[in-house]
Amino acid sequence: MAPYVTEFDLYEPQSADDRQFAIQKIAVVGSGSWGTALARIAALNAAEKKGFNHEVRMWVREREIPGQGLLTDVINSSHVNHRYLPDVPLPHNLVAVSELVNVVKDATLIVLVVPHQFLTPVLEELSKPGVLATDARAISAIKGVEVAGDQIYTFPWLIEQKLGIPCSALGGANIAMEVAQSEFCETTIGVPSKDDAALWHAVFDSPMFRVHPIEDVAGVSLSGALKNVVALAAGFVDGMGYGGNTKAAILRIGLLEMAAFTKEFFPSSSSLTFSHHSAGVADLITTSFGGRNRKCAEAFIKTGKTFAQLEHELLKGQKLQGVATAEETYQFLHARGRTEGYPLFTKVYKISFEGMDPKTLFDDL
Amino acid sequence: MAPYVTEFDLYEPQSADDRQFAIQKIAVVGSGSWGTALARIAALNAAEKKGFNHEVRMWVREREIPGQGLLTDVINSSHVNHRYLPDVPLPHNLVAVSELVNVVKDATLIVLVVPHQFLTPVLEELSKPGVLATDARAISAIKGVEVAGDQIYTFPWLIEQKLGIPCSALGGANIAMEVAQSEFCETTIGVPSKDDAALWHAVFDSPMFRVHPIEDVAGVSLSGALKNVVALAAGFVDGMGYGGNTKAAILRIGLLEMAAFTKEFFPSSSSLTFSHHSAGVADLITTSFGGRNRKCAEAFIKTGKTFAQLEHELLKGQKLQGVATAEETYQFLHARGRTEGYPLFTKVYKISFEGMDPKTLFDDL
Repeated sequence: MAPYVTEFDLYEPQSADDRQFAIQKIAVVGSGSWGTALARIAALNAAEKKGFNHEVRMWVREREIPGQGLLTDVINSSHVNHRYLPDVPLPHNLVAVSELVNVVKDATLIVLVVPHQFLTPVLEELSKPGVLATDARAISAIKGVEVAGDQIYTFPWLIEQKLGIPCSALGGANIAMEVAQSEFCETTIGVPSKDDAALWHAVFDSPMFRVHPIEDVAGVSLSGALKNVVALAAGFVDGMGYGGNTKAAILRIGLLEMAAFTKEFFPSSSSLTFSHHSAGVADLITTSFGGRNRKCAEAFIKTGKTFAQLEHELLKGQKLQGVATAEETYQFLHARGRTEGYPLFTKVYKISFEGMDPKTLFDDL
Repeated sequence: MAPYVTEFDLYEPQSADDRQFAIQKIAVVGSGSWGTALARIAALNAAEKKGFNHEVRMWVREREIPGQGLLTDVINSSHVNHRYLPDVPLPHNLVAVSELVNVVKDATLIVLVVPHQFLTPVLEELSKPGVLATDARAISAIKGVEVAGDQIYTFPWLIEQKLGIPCSALGGANIAMEVAQSEFCETTIGVPSKDDAALWHAVFDSPMFRVHPIEDVAGVSLSGALKNVVALAAGFVDGMGYGGNTKAAILRIGLLEMAAFTKEFFPSSSSLTFSHHSAGVADLITTSFGGRNRKCAEAFIKTGKTFAQLEHELLKGQKLQGVATAEETYQFLHARGRTEGYPLFTKVYKISFEGMDPKTLFDDL
């Protein structure tokens, strides 16, 4: 074993079949780029490993594709999700299903990977009596956090509350298309128990998608949300034309703010999640060099347009994750009287929404 | 104070004049890009802050510049180091001096920033009786390590042994030209004592060059050497055409190997140096996205040329730092029977020198 394995990693999951679980049935609720990429891996593993039901169902919101028929039929006959994961062949045991109750029927492992704003109605449906198996577990691959006044919640916590089942969190340096093309990468799964670690590791781990379970659901969830705020700062740096030193400094400071924020408001979390794991430092790097938050933030500086304008022009009106999270995080910190403890997050908000001069980004960091 | 300040940072240096040191005289031994950039900052601070002798001397190896006279005269009249830091005006209190003994005469603060291979003759000269002031201190900004069989030494350790004075280490995400252009950045100074922290902080800290002293000389030294090995791996990833996920995974794994290596062979070092400080994670990011180690490693994959060929073609025969360190580190680990503990370092060596297939980089990480 490499000497740099942390105490977290010592918690090495056994494979699900070694532990003699009942046969597991996987359902994926969501079919965007990331949902489809995760569903592909889960289906490949379900087909190959012992202990899984062969068929993996993926929820697809039904619609008519002009000249081709229903979307589920198109996906199930072509075995490609043309819109969200073009040119990537999907395994034949991955089946697109339009009725949510049929997706999760008898499923023991529910992967939740819908856009943030669809979570509430999905949980509403799943919480109805008889929809979920009593021994089901969930995992959230949804980025973001939920803020209400001076309260902040992770999605796994909301899912556990609403569905009454354990919920893990998945995050890491995982650009969907690269994962789908089997480029080597790692992901982190924050789990509430050793059983969750063993099962989710079995669902997702493969030679080119290395899964590291850690006992920090909140850390994995918060990192996935807050990295996008830091990526905006990285985009501001790019937009102002500064080089690698400045960007690396902003990433370093941002990573420390991410860890400190999570530790302050979720005290059972671990700063190792940020410093040592894919969900922390690696995801931050990928997002701050390649992601669309960085890109839009660069355009924000260079064009002088508002984020609302840029979202309209570049994202067809879709809300930019980092901007939404920067706003929510700021409002939460403001409600708690703690903005001064997080100068980078606070400045990203003020530059984004209050016309603060981006050159002041570096003051008092 | 921001909540993410670590125990290291609590060790906040007072300014040198608050502590009522004798007047300090700064000497910079070296005048390449990085030496000149550091000398510029030191001279700006010496001119502005209390407690410093106004003049800062910088060692320049004398030569005739055709049609312009002696190099020291050219630098001292133009106040530019045209060859190594073109277009950057240097403060007039920074004086180029060709005789090493005159550079360090009466100096209490010696900045050593010569290329690795010149360190031995420089130390030979400085160690002669009467050359250094008895109360002098040194700081090393030299990248690399010294390996002899199964022994490994940092440059600050060698400097302390040879000169009998305390030696700190400086490292961080610091591309010389960006520092010289006053782009915001951070640096880390590993110090042996609180007095060293206060003095070196005063020498270098400025609004756009933030200095964080930490009590880890070995960590700062080793990080500056080992990051270049990881940057080669990052270049291999780029050369093979993989994307951000894979590169971030390699950086994450590399950072853990860097910290583990340092902890194993320099047990008093701290893993926080790698995870939290500019000399660690930030320097690794900058080097792995922008540096010439990365660039040459990408070319190594794409062209199929050896590193010796690439050094000849791209670096005028100069040895690539990461390649030298990869070789030394491997030889050291091999002598210690510890190669299997550091799979990434070992593979970088074998890909670089033994024709190992670069696609195996990801196996068993």
